Amino acid sequence: ANRARLLISCPDQPGIVAAIAQFLYQRGANIVQMDQYSAPPDVGLFFTRVEFDLPSMLQRLPELERAFVPVADAFQMEWRLAPACVPKRAAIFVSKEDHCLLELLWQWQTGDLFMDLAMVISNHPDARETVESLGVPFYHVPVDRDRKPQAEAKQLALLAGQVDVVILARYMQILSPEFVGRFPNRIINIHHSFLPAFVGRNPYGRAYNRGVKLIGATAHYVTDELDEGPIIEQDVHRVDHRATVADLKRIGRHVERVVLARAVKWHLEDRILIHDNKTIVFA
Amino acid sequence: ANRARLLISCPDQPGIVAAIAQFLYQRGANIVQMDQYSAPPDVGLFFTRVEFDLPSMLQRLPELERAFVPVADAFQMEWRLAPACVPKRAAIFVSKEDHCLLELLWQWQTGDLFMDLAMVISNHPDARETVESLGVPFYHVPVDRDRKPQAEAKQLALLAGQVDVVILARYMQILSPEFVGRFPNRIINIHHSFLPAFVGRNPYGRAYNRGVKLIGATAHYVTDELDEGPIIEQDVHRVDHRATVADLKRIGRHVERVVLARAVKWHLEDRILIHDNKTIVFA
Amino acid sequence: ANRARLLISCPDQPGIVAAIAQFLYQRGANIVQMDQYSAPPDVGLFFTRVEFDLPSMLQRLPELERAFVPVADAFQMEWRLAPACVPKRAAIFVSKEDHCLLELLWQWQTGDLFMDLAMVISNHPDARETVESLGVPFYHVPVDRDRKPQAEAKQLALLAGQVDVVILARYMQILSPEFVGRFPNRIINIHHSFLPAFVGRNPYGRAYNRGVKLIGATAHYVTDELDEGPIIEQDVHRVDHRATVADLKRIGRHVERVVLARAVKWHLEDRILIHDNKTIVFA
Amino acid sequence: ANRARLLISCPDQPGIVAAIAQFLYQRGANIVQMDQYSAPPDVGLFFTRVEFDLPSMLQRLPELERAFVPVADAFQMEWRLAPACVPKRAAIFVSKEDHCLLELLWQWQTGDLFMDLAMVISNHPDARETVESLGVPFYHVPVDRDRKPQAEAKQLALLAGQVDVVILARYMQILSPEFVGRFPNRIINIHHSFLPAFVGRNPYGRAYNRGVKLIGATAHYVTDELDEGPIIEQDVHRVDHRATVADLKRIGRHVERVVLARAVKWHLEDRILIHDNKTIVFA
Repeated sequence: ANRARLLISCPDQPGIVAAIAQFLYQRGANIVQMDQYSAPPDVGLFFTRVEFDLPSMLQRLPELERAFVPVADAFQMEWRLAPACVPKRAAIFVSKEDHCLLELLWQWQTGDLFMDLAMVISNHPDARETVESLGVPFYHVPVDRDRKPQAEAKQLALLAGQVDVVILARYMQILSPEFVGRFPNRIINIHHSFLPAFVGRNPYGRAYNRGVKLIGATAHYVTDELDEGPIIEQDVHRVDHRATVADLKRIGRHVERVVLARAVKWHLEDRILIHDNKTIVFA
Repeated sequence: ANRARLLISCPDQPGIVAAIAQFLYQRGANIVQMDQYSAPPDVGLFFTRVEFDLPSMLQRLPELERAFVPVADAFQMEWRLAPACVPKRAAIFVSKEDHCLLELLWQWQTGDLFMDLAMVISNHPDARETVESLGVPFYHVPVDRDRKPQAEAKQLALLAGQVDVVILARYMQILSPEFVGRFPNRIINIHHSFLPAFVGRNPYGRAYNRGVKLIGATAHYVTDELDEGPIIEQDVHRVDHRATVADLKRIGRHVERVVLARAVKWHLEDRILIHDNKTIVFA
Repeated sequence: ANRARLLISCPDQPGIVAAIAQFLYQRGANIVQMDQYSAPPDVGLFFTRVEFDLPSMLQRLPELERAFVPVADAFQMEWRLAPACVPKRAAIFVSKEDHCLLELLWQWQTGDLFMDLAMVISNHPDARETVESLGVPFYHVPVDRDRKPQAEAKQLALLAGQVDVVILARYMQILSPEFVGRFPNRIINIHHSFLPAFVGRNPYGRAYNRGVKLIGATAHYVTDELDEGPIIEQDVHRVDHRATVADLKRIGRHVERVVLARAVKWHLEDRILIHDNKTIVFA
Repeated sequence: ANRARLLISCPDQPGIVAAIAQFLYQRGANIVQMDQYSAPPDVGLFFTRVEFDLPSMLQRLPELERAFVPVADAFQMEWRLAPACVPKRAAIFVSKEDHCLLELLWQWQTGDLFMDLAMVISNHPDARETVESLGVPFYHVPVDRDRKPQAEAKQLALLAGQVDVVILARYMQILSPEFVGRFPNRIINIHHSFLPAFVGRNPYGRAYNRGVKLIGATAHYVTDELDEGPIIEQDVHRVDHRATVADLKRIGRHVERVVLARAVKWHLEDRILIHDNKTIVFA
């Protein structure tokens, strides 16, 4: 209950670590994990994630944030301070295929994913029973081709003020720029290919046709550019000539669910910073 | 000295295995390794690789080949019979970067790659000493932008009748369709990306810009379509945000050399069949 | 419904493939997948797995088996003929940790694991609701330290005539030689280490103390020698100095469940032959 | 030329990062990479590696070290300050098998391994030409079973004052405690198995007999306990039932050389701290 995380990006210059460490030390905090990355000189940016313990942290958080403002201003920091004990509120979007949803539910129940699962939203009713049996609200929001804005409006109404992160667990509808703009760098998608290979539709069919020897998946933040957002995590699995498209999909399901779960875990633990369409992951 | 390999592709139908096995058994051969793959019904093809021992095989090879013709004709087989004890004759093409060349030389010397290394051809003189110190002929054939046909003519003259397979070990010149046509499915290239991601030039720079989390390499047969030939082998290595373009290249070098060496080994051991721009690899 | 698998091991000699292929061809079967392995001369054994299609296979199976006896006898074969369309009947044993159980249930429901799940037996009552909600019988058989024989008797009574394979999905009780003898090469266990490293109890704690950089799991057939049975499959996951014992267990859970599921899948598809405490896996 | 690394381990307490960062900032240093790890409370130790740029670092190093003493004393630090531009002096020990030696030579020549290769010592004369052709001194020190102390004395005389790290690149002789004591935590060995599996002699033969599905290698620091020193790096490669002992050795060679090279690289870049027979690797 005393642990918090401070995430910072700012122009690189001498003295940043000293200023941060000094600030925390003076307030009685003990740093338990510090990760830092300085981008190459042509980028000239400094990134850090500091995990620290501070007695009565939750009560002192507002004061801490106020006190940090002058430090942050001096170094032109973008920053946030996140208590480790307060779970982020998440919504999962899913379509028909439920392997990613099931994995997230499983890891949430075992405690591997520390989040407050606010709701599951689907354009199909199939997952209702599974989801509700765990005490999680399930909303069926059908998405008709010509009534997409109405569907999104309904989704946004459900989400409003309720969630910190949206997880697209094989949700097969493209979100509008308006929707995406409401959750900047807070929508995580799983793409069923090793991006940028097989951008777009039917990646397994195209992987089959190309005769690739590895099948992959990519978790990324969603931006307005389809399949072009910052990549969080990728992994692959070996396949051979015997694999049919159905086999590729089956093997792919396993890669997808672990890659998505890893990305979500890092997001929930405030391990990801973003710069210039790339992620810095302090895993 | 008694081992040979029979490689076959033909339309699928009952009785193929029986015919092949019967043929070999009647001649006193013992099958030591048989691999087989039937493509899905919509393709309807049968592929096999049979490794067998036969006393006095080398002397009996011509007779064996003659005798197999009626069997092959009955099943419309494409086939070849290759003695395991006769090394394939190989030429390595290389430009400036020598890590793939060195790996091939090393595996050739340890006996991991069983081949008759006929020559190394390069558009740069740098590798001469290394190559010649191993007793392998080295030819420096510069490739000027406006005298490419002349360079290729010189290369083809060197290769004529001397080699069974051409290995492009980071050879940075594009071969003409005429050149490629002289060695159908017998030119192996290493591409420094996980194809089809980053087709073309400067893959590591583009991988860096895209922020991928895995770096890959692809060994493939060369066809007239640049980077589009049948993929033989691929592998990847994990990278993170700290990796600069130079780091990606360094890590990539390791992936490239092992992927190329694996593909070459499979080719030399007659483990690869090709169909429809895809490889069947009986590894 | 017409597909079957023929699995054979026998002393190596010329003519085996011919005899098998001839036999199948004469009965109108079409070989769709043939895998073969000849052990080195000092072992001198031949192993094969032939997958074939035969019209009305199920009805003709008894006749086929009878007809094969003379062939089998001529080559001293150990063999079995298994219809691909008849699922094996499986029982899952589990203790407290349910990640392997959940993975098997999930893969069973998606159809990745083709089996008839006859029952789940546990020495703890915890998994009852999950199991029964899927329509699978659940039996709670407590195992007291001084009443183990009675517990095993109860288990064996439940299994009698009902199952072809027993899957120990993190079942933390040691089975007696009598129990094991009832299911030779048909009990699959998942061991939470990369065997033979950390044989026995508390592998993650010992892995932590030893400071290993990879965490593994091993699926193996159970024999009377604890943790010494034939290894079916192994895999590992990278860890670093930051990982606590709890982290190792969490990461290990993921390795364990995929390794066990892969081994079970291969067993269900008759892809595994055993010789001399080793498996031949035609994956 | 301005870059240095500060490595520290000490009892954990608040204020350490602040003190270090303050110290560096006051002297005009800019932190470019900071890695930190706090062991769990029951261990209670703090580890860090700080890479920083400081104008005229080399000249100012002695002054810097003097000035740091009071800081170090206040926190009971074990520490060292290492200029990044000064290569460590290395000796490679090798026996007959040269794949690890060749890999190290290759990576040294490409600049991947930044070291001053002082000498290669072998109990066999085979590698002389390869080594000397690169301008590296080669010493043949035969090791007779009954004259081991004399051989070690000769080796130590060659090494005396000349090397910072000794790399055992498949050196098949056991070093005496006296020898090991001369280079505490500065002798790196490659063991041809995934330790602690197959400790001791003939690991590939034993791996073959056990029927493992993955072959591994382990780089570790040498201590008086054979094969028990702190593990630096491990990796594995998949094998199947077809692999003979010779195949395992061949595949193993590839794993060994990359694992050893990675460990050496981390050592040369001061990325490794040791505590309680375990390594902290800031890779």
